[in-house]
Amino acid sequence: MRGELAVALSMRHAGVRQVLLRYEVQGPAGAPVVFVAGGISAHRHVSASGAFPEQGWANALVAAGRTLDPARHRILAFDYVGADGRLDAPIDTTDQADAIALLLDALEIDRLQAFVGYSYGAMVGLQFAARHPARLRRLVAVSGAHKPHPYASAWRALQRRAVALGQLQCADAQGLALARQFAMLSYRTPEEFGERFDSAPEIVNGRVRCAAEDYLDAAGAQYVARTPVTAYLRLSESIDLHRLDPAAVAVPVSVVAVEGDRLVPLADSVNLVEGLHGRGQLRVLRSPYGHDAFLKETDRIDLILAAVLRGNGAAQ
Amino acid sequence: MRGELAVALSMRHAGVRQVLLRYEVQGPAGAPVVFVAGGISAHRHVSASGAFPEQGWANALVAAGRTLDPARHRILAFDYVGADGRLDAPIDTTDQADAIALLLDALEIDRLQAFVGYSYGAMVGLQFAARHPARLRRLVAVSGAHKPHPYASAWRALQRRAVALGQLQCADAQGLALARQFAMLSYRTPEEFGERFDSAPEIVNGRVRCAAEDYLDAAGAQYVARTPVTAYLRLSESIDLHRLDPAAVAVPVSVVAVEGDRLVPLADSVNLVEGLHGRGQLRVLRSPYGHDAFLKETDRIDLILAAVLRGNGAAQ
Repeated sequence: MRGELAVALSMRHAGVRQVLLRYEVQGPAGAPVVFVAGGISAHRHVSASGAFPEQGWANALVAAGRTLDPARHRILAFDYVGADGRLDAPIDTTDQADAIALLLDALEIDRLQAFVGYSYGAMVGLQFAARHPARLRRLVAVSGAHKPHPYASAWRALQRRAVALGQLQCADAQGLALARQFAMLSYRTPEEFGERFDSAPEIVNGRVRCAAEDYLDAAGAQYVARTPVTAYLRLSESIDLHRLDPAAVAVPVSVVAVEGDRLVPLADSVNLVEGLHGRGQLRVLRSPYGHDAFLKETDRIDLILAAVLRGNGAAQ
Repeated sequence: MRGELAVALSMRHAGVRQVLLRYEVQGPAGAPVVFVAGGISAHRHVSASGAFPEQGWANALVAAGRTLDPARHRILAFDYVGADGRLDAPIDTTDQADAIALLLDALEIDRLQAFVGYSYGAMVGLQFAARHPARLRRLVAVSGAHKPHPYASAWRALQRRAVALGQLQCADAQGLALARQFAMLSYRTPEEFGERFDSAPEIVNGRVRCAAEDYLDAAGAQYVARTPVTAYLRLSESIDLHRLDPAAVAVPVSVVAVEGDRLVPLADSVNLVEGLHGRGQLRVLRSPYGHDAFLKETDRIDLILAAVLRGNGAAQ
């Protein structure tokens, strides 16, 4: 089922704004609800269903036979506030968390069995757990921490500058494509590039063209086709605004870190778990996919979700 | 002493071109000659001298009391072919190596005591050692290998796209500044950014501004002021064109790798040394400055140069 909910959202840096919350839910009524939130490019359509058969962004994780089996859970997700490109103002992760609470109110969901957040979704999940602890039993925070790493923030700031450079000359699409291409380097790893693109460059029209450029062209074009520039800018900023005291999180949190993640260093995940005191547990995955491991190492992520969510059921 | 030498250079991808080789040499006549070559932004002025008192790009390494003491060596360096921005054609590292050989001919230098190359200079040094083995006793190759890593090539290709995006609208300076800023992220490490820029972002004129942005602004402006766009583009390409069979290098090579270098992974330096068979030896440095360690960890680099160059003297 899909729906839209108009709400007045009191935002941290932008006053009260009227926003439309677009959500999708699948799974049997009465089943425990799991909220799933992904990176800034994710959306409410997590996985294919009878009603909406197109592939979702986490199709391999929310599926029959998986821990997040929509026959046994209600899977709820939404489009991030700002994802439609209509809100041109600073957006905080606390705003996303509060929007989710409003959505749960409207859907009459008292308490989530779990909030599973990846990347930006992990940051939003941490804010949700800190601000609305009665609304969830457990958080699974994958590849996201209590604050962005300064190096990753610098990387994103430069991506936003690429967009600004494009906008100077009404080449918005080129700017956004370049920003996305730079982002791809942060989502993946040298190991993967070394394996996939290890051929000599070519000279095309007097210019050097490297082996990865076809891939990067495709990644840029695909992203530009589906992403409003304003949405990209404001959600990218939102990652950098994110900041949270782990001690304020009062529910159990499973922190999943990927060794080799170029955006979220393992040390930051360790700091998060330390700050959570007894409420945090850390699981570390090593993957050539780095930050994108959640989307690519789906068998291993599913095993972690199984351990965490079953452990949750038993322990509470 | 500074000089200029007009030569006809037979280039790998661009035919025969008339180029001007600008060089600088300091130190006593008759002393053993060391050629010093740096990154693509380096130039002939390596260090301050009586004749040219302004700071050089490796001022802390070529100085009284250092291994590369200009009282005991003649230190020779040049501006890379293409650095003046007048040569708008693909430039290969073999072209740079051949240009150096022509320069040695003109200066009547039969044989270098050593070639010390850092980053691009290490690549050029490897080509020089492969193509002109009689012209040097030993190569010290710091933070450069026999081929670029595909991930690093992708990173540079995107920097060149930032320049191209700027050029679309005659915003060449903005494009070049952005390219340089992205390059800075590859030259340094998350550890350094984490220590220097760990404060919350600000909202300035409704936009998020991260802690590292002042630093990045300065880095971009400084670079744009001294670098022709064409020079940047062609020398950046040149790194990606670089490719060499280590087995073709017939002189002793000391390979210095920095653990944490985001452009030259340690594995590539190891592969280089393996390919050199008995002629290579590896020294590994760990530094929060990553690829820029050569310029920042000058005490430790000097110790390595001392061990290598003295060892060289004893062994040969």
